[in-house]
Amino acid sequence: MLPATTPQPPYYAVIFTSVRTDGDNDYGEMAQQMLELAAKQPGFLGFESARQDIGISVSYWASHEAIKAWRENILHRQAQSRATDWYKAFRVRVCRVEREYGF
Amino acid sequence: MLPATTPQPPYYAVIFTSVRTDGDNDYGEMAQQMLELAAKQPGFLGFESARQDIGISVSYWASHEAIKAWRENILHRQAQSRATDWYKAFRVRVCRVEREYGF
Repeated sequence: MLPATTPQPPYYAVIFTSVRTDGDNDYGEMAQQMLELAAKQPGFLGFESARQDIGISVSYWASHEAIKAWRENILHRQAQSRATDWYKAFRVRVCRVEREYGF
Repeated sequence: MLPATTPQPPYYAVIFTSVRTDGDNDYGEMAQQMLELAAKQPGFLGFESARQDIGISVSYWASHEAIKAWRENILHRQAQSRATDWYKAFRVRVCRVEREYGF
């Protein structure tokens, strides 16, 4: 995995920070399914993820409308309804990316 | 580590995504120093970090001015000048956090 290749700002980021519950509880399978499904959504720009003590996943999107459509996707909503099976705590932060640099 | 406790949006996030070089090259010590120094800066709101294949660190800030002051901090600039010792690739994304939710 490399840092996501994203277009010139502005675009949008959803930072999902979480602490997992103990045990898998189908988490691995569901996470993989959700990533594959997200990547097919209109306006999806990229994804980055890492987990140690906490997990941080960042998805990048072309617009607020694209984020809203993904949040309301029926399969994604079914996954969201199981959040407490997988997470002791989580925060979702919806952001407008204003500037990007690096190498 | 838990998800950062941040105020009501709007506030700002810097998403730092990176791939490490091989070997430590003083990275561990410098990363710890930089986190301690960042946490003392005016406008610092919190920090989250995880590394697997890639590293994702997110720092949260009260304003663009706070981010700029931290970017230009002299000790931080000395660390920035060694970026290629530590990173094969990195991206910095400066974001405005518009909405936050979770449990």
